[in-house]
Amino acid sequence: MNYRMIRFILFQVMRIEGVLMLLPCLISIIYGDGEGAYFAGVAAFLIAAGFIGCKFLPKNQTINVKEGYVSTGLSWIVLSFFGCLPFWLSGEISSFTDAFFETVSGFTTTGASILSNVEELSHAALFWRSFTHWIGGMGVLVFLLALIPMSGGSNINLMRAESPGPSVGKLVPKMRYTAIILYVIYMVMTILEVVFLFCGGLNLFDSFCLAFGTAGTGGFAVRSDSFESYSIYIRWVVGIFMLLFGVNFNAYYFILMRQFKKAFSFEEVRVFVAIVALSTAAVFANIIPLYENGIMALTDAFFQVTSIVSTTGYCSADFDLWPTTSKFILCFLMFMGACAGSTGGGVKVSRLMILWKSVVKEVQSYIHPKIVKKVTLDKKALDNDVLKSTHVFLATYVGVFLASMLIVSLESRDLTTTFTAVLATLNNIGPGLSMVGATCNYGFLSFASKWTLCFDMLAGRLELFPILLLFAPSLYKK
Amino acid sequence: MNYRMIRFILFQVMRIEGVLMLLPCLISIIYGDGEGAYFAGVAAFLIAAGFIGCKFLPKNQTINVKEGYVSTGLSWIVLSFFGCLPFWLSGEISSFTDAFFETVSGFTTTGASILSNVEELSHAALFWRSFTHWIGGMGVLVFLLALIPMSGGSNINLMRAESPGPSVGKLVPKMRYTAIILYVIYMVMTILEVVFLFCGGLNLFDSFCLAFGTAGTGGFAVRSDSFESYSIYIRWVVGIFMLLFGVNFNAYYFILMRQFKKAFSFEEVRVFVAIVALSTAAVFANIIPLYENGIMALTDAFFQVTSIVSTTGYCSADFDLWPTTSKFILCFLMFMGACAGSTGGGVKVSRLMILWKSVVKEVQSYIHPKIVKKVTLDKKALDNDVLKSTHVFLATYVGVFLASMLIVSLESRDLTTTFTAVLATLNNIGPGLSMVGATCNYGFLSFASKWTLCFDMLAGRLELFPILLLFAPSLYKK
Repeated sequence: MNYRMIRFILFQVMRIEGVLMLLPCLISIIYGDGEGAYFAGVAAFLIAAGFIGCKFLPKNQTINVKEGYVSTGLSWIVLSFFGCLPFWLSGEISSFTDAFFETVSGFTTTGASILSNVEELSHAALFWRSFTHWIGGMGVLVFLLALIPMSGGSNINLMRAESPGPSVGKLVPKMRYTAIILYVIYMVMTILEVVFLFCGGLNLFDSFCLAFGTAGTGGFAVRSDSFESYSIYIRWVVGIFMLLFGVNFNAYYFILMRQFKKAFSFEEVRVFVAIVALSTAAVFANIIPLYENGIMALTDAFFQVTSIVSTTGYCSADFDLWPTTSKFILCFLMFMGACAGSTGGGVKVSRLMILWKSVVKEVQSYIHPKIVKKVTLDKKALDNDVLKSTHVFLATYVGVFLASMLIVSLESRDLTTTFTAVLATLNNIGPGLSMVGATCNYGFLSFASKWTLCFDMLAGRLELFPILLLFAPSLYKK
Repeated sequence: MNYRMIRFILFQVMRIEGVLMLLPCLISIIYGDGEGAYFAGVAAFLIAAGFIGCKFLPKNQTINVKEGYVSTGLSWIVLSFFGCLPFWLSGEISSFTDAFFETVSGFTTTGASILSNVEELSHAALFWRSFTHWIGGMGVLVFLLALIPMSGGSNINLMRAESPGPSVGKLVPKMRYTAIILYVIYMVMTILEVVFLFCGGLNLFDSFCLAFGTAGTGGFAVRSDSFESYSIYIRWVVGIFMLLFGVNFNAYYFILMRQFKKAFSFEEVRVFVAIVALSTAAVFANIIPLYENGIMALTDAFFQVTSIVSTTGYCSADFDLWPTTSKFILCFLMFMGACAGSTGGGVKVSRLMILWKSVVKEVQSYIHPKIVKKVTLDKKALDNDVLKSTHVFLATYVGVFLASMLIVSLESRDLTTTFTAVLATLNNIGPGLSMVGATCNYGFLSFASKWTLCFDMLAGRLELFPILLLFAPSLYKK
């Protein structure tokens, strides 16, 4: 294994995190909340360590699949460790476990909080909390690839390990330009949302924080009641942007390139939009008896569906009080998640489509044994390797799910709490049902459960293997 | 499609069911409960229709995979339809839906009941109810194969469609002898259990009914409180037999052939026994604080674990009141089920083993990309087709599960009830948790839910495709 290159990448990540941490310092100076010193201290350490560590570029810059996974897994752990220090050192979150949980929840764009009252936090901490969503949404290694020209074509393995979906393609031949294009689209869409929110009467700070949470499909809000006190206009703006950030970014690239036909022909995006429309209609029909006002019911149905399916997790209503059918649909959407190549989490629409198509193919092969058909996506026949790794991904997903449930079940909370706590963290949603529902938080959980859920959030964001691989004994054998 | 042969098989199944239905007539005469007339009437019709229909053996007796699935699916529907008529005609179960549900639950060896008080039933009805478990356990088409010599080697497709597990092998070159051997082992073990139960002080009727329920891994009891009033001895006898009937019957064949080494080297059986031992220990440790008596706690832990893992569903304690960890373990065991080639249901241990091994292989291929390894079971490399169909089975299983939950969720019961009602029927267990828990029944459910669960029970027992295929539009295209 290329240890030098992994070390180099980790130092690069530290340096980037240090520079990004200067932003909350600036916020602290603007609002004069006096918490900036902690951010400045950690930032200074990260920048210093990063610069020293990055001084010597390794000769062999090859990153194989294995190195890609390992350095991605470790990068995210390092990122979360240093990211939580300001919360902990300043005492704004007194327990280290809680501070780490909150930061992992931020970077992995989960949005599950241990805080019962977010309004108590300083502006600097609130900003950093939402900003971690934005960093984690598109990924810090993608950011690294965009910033630093690395030699060798093997750095697609870094991108592959960090980006969600069954297969990752390049938009343009050069990996670096692909990363730059993705980040530019990401930035422009975020700023667009800030403008819309600001026009809707929110102040600039709230607009930025909410836009970061939407763009990364994270879900940390700046008010304890999440979205319940915002206007219908704000709900629709955020609802629509959650939907947009759940779409495969390649579609936006093609729109930019004015290849509209290509942009609108993505099978996954069409299915995704159809599922959102159907689910909104079903939830709307199911909850309308609870509302006096049809528009409000539709707003909440649309907001909650897009929030869950994009794995953001903002709440405009306490859906724990909704009828079972709605709760079941939301649980299914949590599991499904957004499109591959978006900032959303979950199993991904394309994986479920591949599964569905394999099943249909299998059934047809019983009826017409002589017809040999291939499973296709976007009119291209899928490689057997993609099929196999999709099946293996799902099996691993179920395994991680069950093992996590077993540990969390030791708390003896009700089954729904246990089930949805794992569901909402492994899929990077945030709120679950029952005791971890929309109006609750994760603060009451035990030490063991919190660390298990931290593991789940990281495993969910990085699609299992970069994190699981770190635990494989054969990795450490010579 | 060979319609003539499918029709021929259906008439054969009717004839067999007619003959088997004479047994409850006999019971009725012995106990003088006056309900025998309904059984006799239906039996007479079935035998007459069967004999006429079977008079003309089709020239072309080929049964392909497709015909195997279709005739199996239809046979079980026909079996359940005529099997429920005596309950309904006699008025012992007043609604047709309920009578059909109870009978499907019997044949599929689920054991989910709509009756709140089984003691009210006549002896004939009670006997038939338990006897359906015994018929369904090993399968009516396997019985047919054992009875009737059919020409052509293609009737393995019938056996394959009805027998559980990822792959079905012949014990001996002739299909018919394989079927006979299986039924002889099944009968001997059932009688052995009857003897043990009778020696424990049960009367002959109860001994037979409970043994039928154990052998088929069904779960219909003859008392409303299931096993709560039976002695510790009876609980251990039934517990051990539930375990034995959950084991791959091929192991018993090898024991009979005195090939002990082969019998004890089945990987699946070893893993199954290990999981049962571990689960019993975990549940025991988890529930011991609820008990005054350690032996009673161990008895209940062992009984409930074997009852659930073998998918029988007898209850010696109300496990709905147990701590969450125990409930979670039981839910996991429901999902897993017993060994392939046993009378138990669920996903099957071997399927989970295949999945687990594919995942390990995939992770290893990331670490050592150059080493090509095959997934093996019992030291034999698995065919790619078996791997693929295992993955497809699981994907289909999850799909059926979700669709069923969506329909049942329309009742607006709590999530645990909705989830475990589907779990307990699709895996042919019987009792679930919450409102369908150990002390409850399925009678309160709506018409739509009952029919959905009937579908699930059949789909679960026949491992999805024989039932699903009947709904494939391309089956009816020329």
